[in-house]
Amino acid sequence: MKIPLGKIPYVYPIPIALLGAQVHGKPNYATVGDLGLMGINPALVCVSSHRDHYTNIGILEHGTFSLNFPTTSMLSVTDTCGVFSGREVDKSAWFDNFYGELQSAPMIQECPVSLECRMLQNTLIQHRQIFIGEVHCAYVDEAYLSQVEGKKQIADLTRLDPILYALDNRYYSIGQPIGVGYQEAKR
Amino acid sequence: MKIPLGKIPYVYPIPIALLGAQVHGKPNYATVGDLGLMGINPALVCVSSHRDHYTNIGILEHGTFSLNFPTTSMLSVTDTCGVFSGREVDKSAWFDNFYGELQSAPMIQECPVSLECRMLQNTLIQHRQIFIGEVHCAYVDEAYLSQVEGKKQIADLTRLDPILYALDNRYYSIGQPIGVGYQEAKR
Repeated sequence: MKIPLGKIPYVYPIPIALLGAQVHGKPNYATVGDLGLMGINPALVCVSSHRDHYTNIGILEHGTFSLNFPTTSMLSVTDTCGVFSGREVDKSAWFDNFYGELQSAPMIQECPVSLECRMLQNTLIQHRQIFIGEVHCAYVDEAYLSQVEGKKQIADLTRLDPILYALDNRYYSIGQPIGVGYQEAKR
Repeated sequence: MKIPLGKIPYVYPIPIALLGAQVHGKPNYATVGDLGLMGINPALVCVSSHRDHYTNIGILEHGTFSLNFPTTSMLSVTDTCGVFSGREVDKSAWFDNFYGELQSAPMIQECPVSLECRMLQNTLIQHRQIFIGEVHCAYVDEAYLSQVEGKKQIADLTRLDPILYALDNRYYSIGQPIGVGYQEAKR
């Protein structure tokens, strides 16, 4: 039997990323779980952030942002990025920063994958600023790439070792491969 | 060293849900990974679906949809929902369907959690229809709820046992708890 619990957005599991933007001339990163893939071609993502967040200043100024996916070994610094605002601390010192072609979306070398994004749309719903972006370029650490039949292939999730989150305020690791898309259909 | 791979939206891991809508008087469900939490209060979600998808007809007609989170034991039927269109098969017969207060967003009894949503915004970017919705009510199976200090508490992710996905076209299970939000900060 289903129990109605009211207006609670139990989306799960929640992927954790570090949302990067250039604010007042410096890289800043905010820990976010409010994000999603929105399409493969065009390469769309969305991310939401409280309109008062420091990171938003940079996204709105430059029209660019990044999503950086930490490993579980980065849990402590990732959690810390969500505790302090860029108004209080200079988080750029916590990472080895780099930029891509857009020049205004700082990214994190320590993360296996960083997505450099251009903001396409910006919607405010109450205090939530929802950014829809197009991935301009994905940067993958060479340690997580292999050549398979002449094509670059990214490591599986057990190696990318992402941080997950749930609304019970716990972080989780990824489990094991359990199947292949479009191959598990009932026969 | 980071290797630029171009316009690839490597968001990971991708939570898998069954997107429900009432189409031509019947429940229909599409497997989606293009979704995200967009805020807790207000309770916002977003989901994206190709504009030609059968499910979109129902979302646009009623202004409502549901997100249903399957367990790994539902992998086969979940994958199948992504292989066939509601134009070809009647997927309502594959599940025990129920409705909430909005009456027009079909949900799945077999899923531990279903979110009944009202569409707030609808944006078309090329062929991707991006819906931002507010959760009207979350329905949680009583088997996944417990009473902790007089309050209803939802089971952790290892019990909810969600299906994850990645752009390497593999499905994954959840791993283990590794920490607590806002408690892992560097000391």
